[in-house]
Amino acid sequence: MKKNLFSLRDLTNEEIFEILDEARRFKRGKEYPVKNKVVCNLFFEPSTRTQYSFNMAEEKLDMKVINFNCQTSSLNKGESFYDTIKTFESFGIDLFVIRHSKTRYYDELKNISIPIINAGDGMGDHPTQSLLDLFTIYEEYGHFDGLKIAIVGDIKHSRVAHTNIEVMTRLGMECFTSGPKEYEEACYKHIPLEEAIKNMDIIMLLRIQNERLGSSEHLQMSNAEYLKNYGLTMDKVNKMKEHAIIMHPAPFNRGVEIDDDVVECDKSRIFKQMTNGVYIRMAVVKRSLGL
Amino acid sequence: MKKNLFSLRDLTNEEIFEILDEARRFKRGKEYPVKNKVVCNLFFEPSTRTQYSFNMAEEKLDMKVINFNCQTSSLNKGESFYDTIKTFESFGIDLFVIRHSKTRYYDELKNISIPIINAGDGMGDHPTQSLLDLFTIYEEYGHFDGLKIAIVGDIKHSRVAHTNIEVMTRLGMECFTSGPKEYEEACYKHIPLEEAIKNMDIIMLLRIQNERLGSSEHLQMSNAEYLKNYGLTMDKVNKMKEHAIIMHPAPFNRGVEIDDDVVECDKSRIFKQMTNGVYIRMAVVKRSLGL
Amino acid sequence: MKKNLFSLRDLTNEEIFEILDEARRFKRGKEYPVKNKVVCNLFFEPSTRTQYSFNMAEEKLDMKVINFNCQTSSLNKGESFYDTIKTFESFGIDLFVIRHSKTRYYDELKNISIPIINAGDGMGDHPTQSLLDLFTIYEEYGHFDGLKIAIVGDIKHSRVAHTNIEVMTRLGMECFTSGPKEYEEACYKHIPLEEAIKNMDIIMLLRIQNERLGSSEHLQMSNAEYLKNYGLTMDKVNKMKEHAIIMHPAPFNRGVEIDDDVVECDKSRIFKQMTNGVYIRMAVVKRSLGL
Repeated sequence: MKKNLFSLRDLTNEEIFEILDEARRFKRGKEYPVKNKVVCNLFFEPSTRTQYSFNMAEEKLDMKVINFNCQTSSLNKGESFYDTIKTFESFGIDLFVIRHSKTRYYDELKNISIPIINAGDGMGDHPTQSLLDLFTIYEEYGHFDGLKIAIVGDIKHSRVAHTNIEVMTRLGMECFTSGPKEYEEACYKHIPLEEAIKNMDIIMLLRIQNERLGSSEHLQMSNAEYLKNYGLTMDKVNKMKEHAIIMHPAPFNRGVEIDDDVVECDKSRIFKQMTNGVYIRMAVVKRSLGL
Repeated sequence: MKKNLFSLRDLTNEEIFEILDEARRFKRGKEYPVKNKVVCNLFFEPSTRTQYSFNMAEEKLDMKVINFNCQTSSLNKGESFYDTIKTFESFGIDLFVIRHSKTRYYDELKNISIPIINAGDGMGDHPTQSLLDLFTIYEEYGHFDGLKIAIVGDIKHSRVAHTNIEVMTRLGMECFTSGPKEYEEACYKHIPLEEAIKNMDIIMLLRIQNERLGSSEHLQMSNAEYLKNYGLTMDKVNKMKEHAIIMHPAPFNRGVEIDDDVVECDKSRIFKQMTNGVYIRMAVVKRSLGL
Repeated sequence: MKKNLFSLRDLTNEEIFEILDEARRFKRGKEYPVKNKVVCNLFFEPSTRTQYSFNMAEEKLDMKVINFNCQTSSLNKGESFYDTIKTFESFGIDLFVIRHSKTRYYDELKNISIPIINAGDGMGDHPTQSLLDLFTIYEEYGHFDGLKIAIVGDIKHSRVAHTNIEVMTRLGMECFTSGPKEYEEACYKHIPLEEAIKNMDIIMLLRIQNERLGSSEHLQMSNAEYLKNYGLTMDKVNKMKEHAIIMHPAPFNRGVEIDDDVVECDKSRIFKQMTNGVYIRMAVVKRSLGL
């Protein structure tokens, strides 16, 4: 059966584990050529990492890939989002991967019968990012029970944070947040960074997404100050627990939320997350096609 | 033998029927993998529908596809159109699909020995659009003889209208035009919209292509007025003949030449036209390659 | 073994001949399907010819191709060049083809373990262009010993000129330069154009790359004057040696360094160079993959 993937909230724990297991099989070398299926990637918002990671996953699955370039499209002739998607459906596309700046853009697409994978919707969700985070943690620890994570940075404007906290809690992890108080959310458990560094199994850093913030939401703080107060330096890394790891959804800003030498330090799993993202997306694409 | 396709005027009725029959075979599931042929799509003018429809057709034929992105090309180093095409010919491309804002751009390409499919030339032709219109009508009625069509909207600036009227007349159809008098052409048979709605087998709506019009050519009329006077509303649809159908080359403007609920109403074949476009293009690509 | 290709200066004569021989085998029809390898083309500077020539070569090798569109990338979120490349490495890419405006950009990429083919680095090198030049000469004459070439135009700002002169000299050719004195380099042997035309086996024209020049570096000369003084007209072509040939790395400017009717005259190998570029790139890609 063909399946949409809009939000991780729609998946049961069992379904999540199925995806993680499939991703692990792909990482171990499983081949699964999906011949003669055409996927269309529609990124109405730019995103190197997510777009090319899907691209890579689709190529590894031997799919036919059509990348929609929204910059040069008929949309500037006034065509609606729905009509664009409906057009591609009419062409006989088998799967959509869509990113759009509008939260819950998929509510407009109920009439579309082709499965859709959400590659990020505004301030909403980014399910494959959450899944690759889970995969990286699961690969590291072999389980989720009782693991402690602190998500550090702009919690308020992060679609990753909200979904991750919901799902990780559901999977038995204990979640904390830290960072500038302007970007905290009252509903989550706050932890001072100093304390987080000493006690967490995972420190997940978030970027300040300046390009998404209104002018009144910008921090009055230099990069160096941010790094000192809320960023991760080797100094702090050296105080982390022996087996603790560092994650970041990327793109990261060296010298702001993460210091230069932390990016590829022993505890960092940042580039491993990117590697895992390809396998997660292979699993998710296969699942959405009902294969 | 390799064959260009510049205009439908160059094809005999017999050749047109051959293409329609091949498209029908593709629609019924015929597979025809064209291994190891490379097609290059060069769209010097943006066009979502046509470009991605060709793309889909080429993928379904298992071709290797190179999409030329003219926005980032050496053309801004002053290279001529001919030299760009000649360059791709030198690379060993097997087929060109070209769209260009210049009418009869292909006259400059007589020296090119690779077959060319015209995907739209300025105010000139758009043969695959006409073919998919014909295919949709033929699929609906099984023949062309005596069918009555009214093309409604900006006849004057439409490359679709001129070619369609020539070919449809030749195939035995009776063609009328309707719409704002500023956009009529004296050479065609005018019909008032009211009358067209009651008597036609096909109503083909055209978009006002504001982006192609000079400032003096714009209508002094609101969208709501246009819809009322020349657009199709469900009110009017309900007065159409029982088996009559609605067509539109798209992109369409909801609330201007077509009302929201008309787009996907029972009589509308608009998205079916898009589906058919892929099969027509498979047939045309195969033909141009001499296969 | 996987191999970078940064500059032709890094290759021995023997290695160069190996590449030329492989290119010749590809030109004669050799097939070598490189299944399941993914190449990523990253062009941080636009270049129709080089980018699509690589693209064609990769398609002919049956590779999976990911074209990075740097215009719409996360780079505008402040991500560094290194981090972008490292990201693609994490995705499991097998080969990079990179063009960048920064000379020796690859010095920043020492940490990358995936092979890199340099498709042009600022004022540095453009090894596949030099190789296709060599291939075209070798195909014409069957050897390099004692052949005389004059490179005519803006020597100073050309990455092609410097590399070519070094390599061609090493291969036994005699190299001269000609053109406006502002663009000469004292280290090379100057030859007046008149004399070059009468005595050379190869005249290689260069374009004035106005878009790379500072305002003080522009010539105070009309196109017509340039053509008369330093450009190639049929008048001059007719004075060339019987078997002498004309080359140009393209894009060329008709009516400036080359007259209209010279571009495709009998002695011109300009479009043949482009054809040969595809085969050279097939050979280079195969080599870099360690195949």
